[in-house]
Amino acid sequence: MNKFEKAQKVLQELKSDGWLIVCSEDSDVNSRYLIGVESHARHYIYVAKDGKHKVLAVEMEAPMIERSLKSKGIDVDVMTYRSLKDLVSSLSSIINKPRIALNFGESILSAESTAYADYIRAGDYFSLKKLAPQTEFISAAPIIDNLRSVKSSEELNDLRNVCKATMEILDTVPNWVKVGMTENEIKAKIEYEYMKLGKPSFGTIVATGAHSADPHHNTSIKKIEQGVLLIDSGLQIEEMCSDITWTFWVGTHPTEDFIRAYHALYESKRVANKYFTDGTPNNMSAKKCREYLSEEGYDHEKLFFHGLGHSLGFEAHDIGGRISWKMPDNYKLKENMVYTNEPGLYWLGKWGIRLEDDIIIGKNECEQVTSVSKEPIQI
Amino acid sequence: MNKFEKAQKVLQELKSDGWLIVCSEDSDVNSRYLIGVESHARHYIYVAKDGKHKVLAVEMEAPMIERSLKSKGIDVDVMTYRSLKDLVSSLSSIINKPRIALNFGESILSAESTAYADYIRAGDYFSLKKLAPQTEFISAAPIIDNLRSVKSSEELNDLRNVCKATMEILDTVPNWVKVGMTENEIKAKIEYEYMKLGKPSFGTIVATGAHSADPHHNTSIKKIEQGVLLIDSGLQIEEMCSDITWTFWVGTHPTEDFIRAYHALYESKRVANKYFTDGTPNNMSAKKCREYLSEEGYDHEKLFFHGLGHSLGFEAHDIGGRISWKMPDNYKLKENMVYTNEPGLYWLGKWGIRLEDDIIIGKNECEQVTSVSKEPIQI
Repeated sequence: MNKFEKAQKVLQELKSDGWLIVCSEDSDVNSRYLIGVESHARHYIYVAKDGKHKVLAVEMEAPMIERSLKSKGIDVDVMTYRSLKDLVSSLSSIINKPRIALNFGESILSAESTAYADYIRAGDYFSLKKLAPQTEFISAAPIIDNLRSVKSSEELNDLRNVCKATMEILDTVPNWVKVGMTENEIKAKIEYEYMKLGKPSFGTIVATGAHSADPHHNTSIKKIEQGVLLIDSGLQIEEMCSDITWTFWVGTHPTEDFIRAYHALYESKRVANKYFTDGTPNNMSAKKCREYLSEEGYDHEKLFFHGLGHSLGFEAHDIGGRISWKMPDNYKLKENMVYTNEPGLYWLGKWGIRLEDDIIIGKNECEQVTSVSKEPIQI
Repeated sequence: MNKFEKAQKVLQELKSDGWLIVCSEDSDVNSRYLIGVESHARHYIYVAKDGKHKVLAVEMEAPMIERSLKSKGIDVDVMTYRSLKDLVSSLSSIINKPRIALNFGESILSAESTAYADYIRAGDYFSLKKLAPQTEFISAAPIIDNLRSVKSSEELNDLRNVCKATMEILDTVPNWVKVGMTENEIKAKIEYEYMKLGKPSFGTIVATGAHSADPHHNTSIKKIEQGVLLIDSGLQIEEMCSDITWTFWVGTHPTEDFIRAYHALYESKRVANKYFTDGTPNNMSAKKCREYLSEEGYDHEKLFFHGLGHSLGFEAHDIGGRISWKMPDNYKLKENMVYTNEPGLYWLGKWGIRLEDDIIIGKNECEQVTSVSKEPIQI
């Protein structure tokens, strides 16, 4: 079953006539996910319950979209527009139906949030309401969730491959990183290697010294110092992303507190692994990980101020509730979901460590697809 | 005057209490533009008419944002949240005001569209309406337009520098591109060079042979053939982007029709330049460019199926009406706006050429900041 057919099935359950994706300048990643190509100009994808799918695209991008869909064996009518008038008239004929699903999230600021489905922009939403005032627009969250949260065996194989390729590149880091290089130079070199195989799945974080205490540090022109070097990066090949953090020590003598924290995190990650199983609440692994860090004497509330992990797949931050001790019990893991497991300890203004591996949720035990070094790697 | 102060002035004109930006995972580029750092988690930026600006950010990203604003000398109260409850309570205290500007576009499917201001997602918009039902939300389009469409002399200098650096890298292309390399390899190498200085301002397009007939071709694993090689790329250093397309010929003997089309485009670009002046309608340069191509015997409606250019600045596709013969007369250029000038001719399934330079709109004449080669460059 291809993605369009899978979406059609959910449309039947939702009693919805179709699923409309509105996208320009990559504003909705589900466009690329469905048509397999990045279209920049304003375009609309309509997955129809009755199988009469449509894409409405600007003239200059239509041939490229058409070829991509054809190569996947998906039967879609690619309509083109040359003017705003064309666009409005074609769009109007598509959306004047009783009930259409759109990519908007509901209850954004609550625990039941479907923010993962929130893509359509407010102005675009208003324009559709105006064009089809009789149409009932419902959230497409169940469709996106169904398509992307549990991975197929093909996707899992792609994950294993992309993770292997990523680690092979990270393995070379100690061979060429030197004191005095800038964070940016290291980022450039790693992403260059990624681009030969695919593309970076997000902007690589290279953080030296005190920068490592900012989990989302923006890689800078700062030169690499002796001490902590944190590298958080990922590779995307075709439709699957990796996301890995290794924390190195630059120089010959890691400090005692660095080694202790590294070992504690490594072990806390193993503890968490036991709870990455089908049917387990998302919060369980995070709670157990924090319990372990507490036992080791770390004030986790102060030093570990982010979630334990997030879903991984077509995007580095993919569909699915995140892994956090703050998640409600009703979020549960399912077999063949993919998550990161990335505990960290941060001393603001000083240094931080994060160790991140990628995990496939299993029936009784998880499969850890990547493997952070057990001992700190010295550069 | 810093960006916050500039925005404050517009807020006074709009009689609005503040400007709220809602951003997560880089969903609104205006966040990065204002705070100077990329924050991934959900955050809110509030520029207040009375100068009491606020940022509401997740605990793990707050220190990084605080430091960035401090380094720019901007006085902002960075509030942090640890839980959804914190977030909702702080946000509620910020937005319960009579009138707040948000980044949504109006009249999206009309000639008066302010789609360039359309960032907030529909679900986010609904959540604000629910949290502050009495607040009147207005479009922030006038603020964004005021901040970003006409460039400062500092920004124009940055543009000249980034354009110079980009051309120096493109100049090396004939030295290392070889038949048999893949498009992806060329993209990786160019972006690696860009990353040493800044970052690619968008995903580089490398298109060999028939791929060059797709203006927005997605760079692929296809190997470089003899014949047309189109490279469309840009570099961003700090806050300014370049955007340049060079079309090369690989092999020793460019065909007659390639050379003729290349020369016609080069000349049509010079014709268009004359109309990149203050007060001239956006459509004028495009009309004159097309007239010239018609005189040269090219069916421009069939072969040149995109606009002549777009605004350039903090983003590769920046704020401001695009350059197209289809734009209404009331869109007029202003001194110190920055545009691309990029005519193209495409024979679908065969090959295409695009020549793209970057232009500063002048009082009486434009300044062409980059310079495509007058004669086709052979590789």
